[in-house]
Amino acid sequence: MNIFFQPDNTKKFLEGDEAQHCIRALRMHPGDFLLVTDGQGRKARARLTDVSKKECFYEIESLEIVPPPPYTIEMAVCPTRKADRNEWMVEKMCEMGVKQINFLVSEHTHQETIKRVVNLERLQRIALSAMKQSRQFYLPKLNFFLSIEDFFKQNLAKHRYIAYVSEKEENKHLIEVAASTESVAVLIGPEGDFSPSEIVKAIECGFTPVSLGETRLRTETAAVLACHSVHLANVMQN
Amino acid sequence: MNIFFQPDNTKKFLEGDEAQHCIRALRMHPGDFLLVTDGQGRKARARLTDVSKKECFYEIESLEIVPPPPYTIEMAVCPTRKADRNEWMVEKMCEMGVKQINFLVSEHTHQETIKRVVNLERLQRIALSAMKQSRQFYLPKLNFFLSIEDFFKQNLAKHRYIAYVSEKEENKHLIEVAASTESVAVLIGPEGDFSPSEIVKAIECGFTPVSLGETRLRTETAAVLACHSVHLANVMQN
Repeated sequence: MNIFFQPDNTKKFLEGDEAQHCIRALRMHPGDFLLVTDGQGRKARARLTDVSKKECFYEIESLEIVPPPPYTIEMAVCPTRKADRNEWMVEKMCEMGVKQINFLVSEHTHQETIKRVVNLERLQRIALSAMKQSRQFYLPKLNFFLSIEDFFKQNLAKHRYIAYVSEKEENKHLIEVAASTESVAVLIGPEGDFSPSEIVKAIECGFTPVSLGETRLRTETAAVLACHSVHLANVMQN
Repeated sequence: MNIFFQPDNTKKFLEGDEAQHCIRALRMHPGDFLLVTDGQGRKARARLTDVSKKECFYEIESLEIVPPPPYTIEMAVCPTRKADRNEWMVEKMCEMGVKQINFLVSEHTHQETIKRVVNLERLQRIALSAMKQSRQFYLPKLNFFLSIEDFFKQNLAKHRYIAYVSEKEENKHLIEVAASTESVAVLIGPEGDFSPSEIVKAIECGFTPVSLGETRLRTETAAVLACHSVHLANVMQN
């Protein structure tokens, strides 16, 4: 059954892109069944009652609240200079399950990237689509353009990790240290890596340095594999 | 230092795309240093001696053979119907480190995908570029369009796994069962999944069914995360 998004639980109709997808792409008709979620765990089984050009009205037949995952993953990344790499990074992390993705501005982030490369609306649409496609009912939050300093101050995750390329230290792999059943935040080095002072600051703020393996990974690959490593740390500990 | 590819160890010059990249993109000159690999573990530190329009001649100053990884991962996937998804799947698996990627034809693979979507040369170039970018010296082999039956017969990996969507069985996660320090092959379900007879056949041929986690993953995501899971099984066991 197809999943649709209606963040406002007082409304009993799909609107905008969701309505268009229902009417035009899927050609659904009154009487057809659908699932509606608010992206916060609500999973309503509904039946279409009326379809206009812009809205799809439905009646809810049964309602379930999907329990939140036993641990939350929050990722913090600096956007890459290629739009498509940012897009797949968001898609893949949302597909796996992530609570929040913070886009940070580091010393090595180009202003051009922030102004021209990152299309916020498009990334929001990709996150929504990935949630529905992977049949999840919690919509990841995308948080755009915090400075690294503000992220250090504001982040409340219980366990915090920073992954960067280090030729001096031999850090443990994230999967070996990531705690399970808690809130976890992972900060990923940008293209060109963090500046030395950013790394010092992160460690002062309680971030544990970790490795992501032997090979040198692109930023977006590192982010996706770090997110997966936290999930697997939980698989291994349960 | 930039890595270049010359598969023929008797030649002491770069040619084709590699030479163009050296001359045009990187604007290297005689006297500059480079690394040259044959994609089979050879890591030669060399110095450019002469640059023509089409070739870059070099002298080898020192030679090292990078030891092969202690375990090998072979992935088997059916191509997705979108070219860019096949491309990033190859890029990411090569970035992480994979010995071979087999593209299979399953019952649910469309002929159109094989004829029009999969651009073999482009995927080879992506694999080469990912190897160099991630500073590895073993070039993954891409093997195109085996039937699933032939793959079952020909595959020689010591440990073999098959990942598919199962609503009946609760299979263990790949990371819990993947053996380390051995040759491992993982077969990933296509868009629309395997046919029931393909699954039966795989199990008869010694493939162990495994899960890749709670959420429903796209084919290309499943392939990348499966490859990563085998790497992490090794991190955890060492």
